[in-house]
Amino acid sequence: MTANRGGPARVGGPANRGGHATPARPADLARCSLNQATVKHARLEQAVAVAAAAGYAAIGLWRDRVRQTGARAAARIVAAAGLRVSTLCRGGFLTASDPVAARAALDDNRRAIEEAATVGAAELVLVVGGLPALSRPGQGPRPQATAADRDLAATRRRLADRIADLVPTALDHGVRLVLEPMHPLFTADRGVIATTAQALDLAAPFPPTAVGVVIDTYHVWWDPELERSIGRAGREGRLAAYQLGDWILPLAADPLHSRGHVGDGYIDFPAITGWMAAAGYAGDVETEIFNQAVWAEEAAVTAAIVADRYRRQVLPYLD
Amino acid sequence: MTANRGGPARVGGPANRGGHATPARPADLARCSLNQATVKHARLEQAVAVAAAAGYAAIGLWRDRVRQTGARAAARIVAAAGLRVSTLCRGGFLTASDPVAARAALDDNRRAIEEAATVGAAELVLVVGGLPALSRPGQGPRPQATAADRDLAATRRRLADRIADLVPTALDHGVRLVLEPMHPLFTADRGVIATTAQALDLAAPFPPTAVGVVIDTYHVWWDPELERSIGRAGREGRLAAYQLGDWILPLAADPLHSRGHVGDGYIDFPAITGWMAAAGYAGDVETEIFNQAVWAEEAAVTAAIVADRYRRQVLPYLD
Repeated sequence: MTANRGGPARVGGPANRGGHATPARPADLARCSLNQATVKHARLEQAVAVAAAAGYAAIGLWRDRVRQTGARAAARIVAAAGLRVSTLCRGGFLTASDPVAARAALDDNRRAIEEAATVGAAELVLVVGGLPALSRPGQGPRPQATAADRDLAATRRRLADRIADLVPTALDHGVRLVLEPMHPLFTADRGVIATTAQALDLAAPFPPTAVGVVIDTYHVWWDPELERSIGRAGREGRLAAYQLGDWILPLAADPLHSRGHVGDGYIDFPAITGWMAAAGYAGDVETEIFNQAVWAEEAAVTAAIVADRYRRQVLPYLD
Repeated sequence: MTANRGGPARVGGPANRGGHATPARPADLARCSLNQATVKHARLEQAVAVAAAAGYAAIGLWRDRVRQTGARAAARIVAAAGLRVSTLCRGGFLTASDPVAARAALDDNRRAIEEAATVGAAELVLVVGGLPALSRPGQGPRPQATAADRDLAATRRRLADRIADLVPTALDHGVRLVLEPMHPLFTADRGVIATTAQALDLAAPFPPTAVGVVIDTYHVWWDPELERSIGRAGREGRLAAYQLGDWILPLAADPLHSRGHVGDGYIDFPAITGWMAAAGYAGDVETEIFNQAVWAEEAAVTAAIVADRYRRQVLPYLD
């Protein structure tokens, strides 16, 4: 098996990954990461401070927040707090059919790879994009949309080409491109990768050090093939990240904001976590929640709830 | 291959199926069916009259509407208008874990099979149900929900047992149970069958005359395996129905009501229709739209729009 940051080769534990001095933290949160989007209204320094105070081991960063301080300063802030960066979110939106837009997307993703390397994120999550000629996210089809604009198969083929374009840059920087299968709710406007098996097929031509997949419970929990696909991802050395969010109903007006705290919805976290463990995943476990009610809460309160749910619904099934 | 009402054996044409006297109709609508839910506010007689006047060959009936006249009267009304019944919608909600609820669901589905036979519907569509102990459709989890209530794999196994319970009754009545893969948007609360491949796996133990699958564009358009699964369904003699509805954004407040007219959204109808044709499907093509704006329109206007979209987006790719 090729060198593999996310799969069985990481069994030695994520603490081996970074070079930071890591102060003593609660042992039970040694793989627990707070995705920055979960405390959306906190600035980078505050999110890092909250995560460190709550005993987390890592934080998942977002590019727009990293830009507020600059990537180098962000790396220093995270390291000073003794945290790892579990992922950088996000690159992607790579499905444009227009050549100018496609080139702009590649440029932006190459910058994202550089930023990931600078902040110390080995994993760059990609939200790959929808049917680009038809709409912007959340909006309806453009009136002038043609039959070709609805060609989902062709859009997926273009995506494969754009991933190939990015792989050399990713390898140069030691950053893995992490394909995100998204809930089919988002196939039209955000992500044409709908299943983990499809993500693995797209990754297959490239080394596991260059292209991996993220298992985000919110996006993949419904998949009848999920256990099998997670096992395959482990065997192929592609398990790059594990993200948590629950499926709650009714959907929010913007369905993107329907992610609930672990345990508040329908998802069987013990089962999925057990599949991840059986597949050899030994990386960080990031909770990522987009939800207006969660965002209205104090960041420290949210961090405490996330840690509590992690301890009860995830940790016992992780080894 | 076993006798097969929906697959290649039907290549002779749907006009051979029923015993009704069929008056001359526009040849190009010879496989066009109006699902009654598309003209929700019309009573049965009115929906039948509108479909017949617009030149449709068939109508898809709903049990609640059939009950307004009784199944025998419904059969007479449809036959007198020279239409076929393409499907009866719907049985299902078979996933209860509570034995009393499971028995009640079986009783109801046996009645649905009898009603289908009486109205002359060879295909009974099943919306199989979600995670039953957790919620009613569209509502959030019950506070007392347990870990076992979230066991999606166990729920799917229970469903397989309930299908087995119903097969003898279906065979006795010459009615096919038609499993509906539903968009993963509905896995939690309406239908734990999320892909066509999963539906085919559930159908596999039973004869194709007893259990088939419906391809509903709204539910399956995003599936990376769709072309392959449709081909498999054709080879296995399971293609029981083809239903149309477009994926439009933004989602309606009740996402169940987000189905748009063919061509108003993101779905590539020519591609999917071509796959159905290549798989040997020669049955009716039903348009089924749940949408407040469509329901607010005159039934005759809706029927005309549906026929127009069918002629432009579907018919050229159907043979």
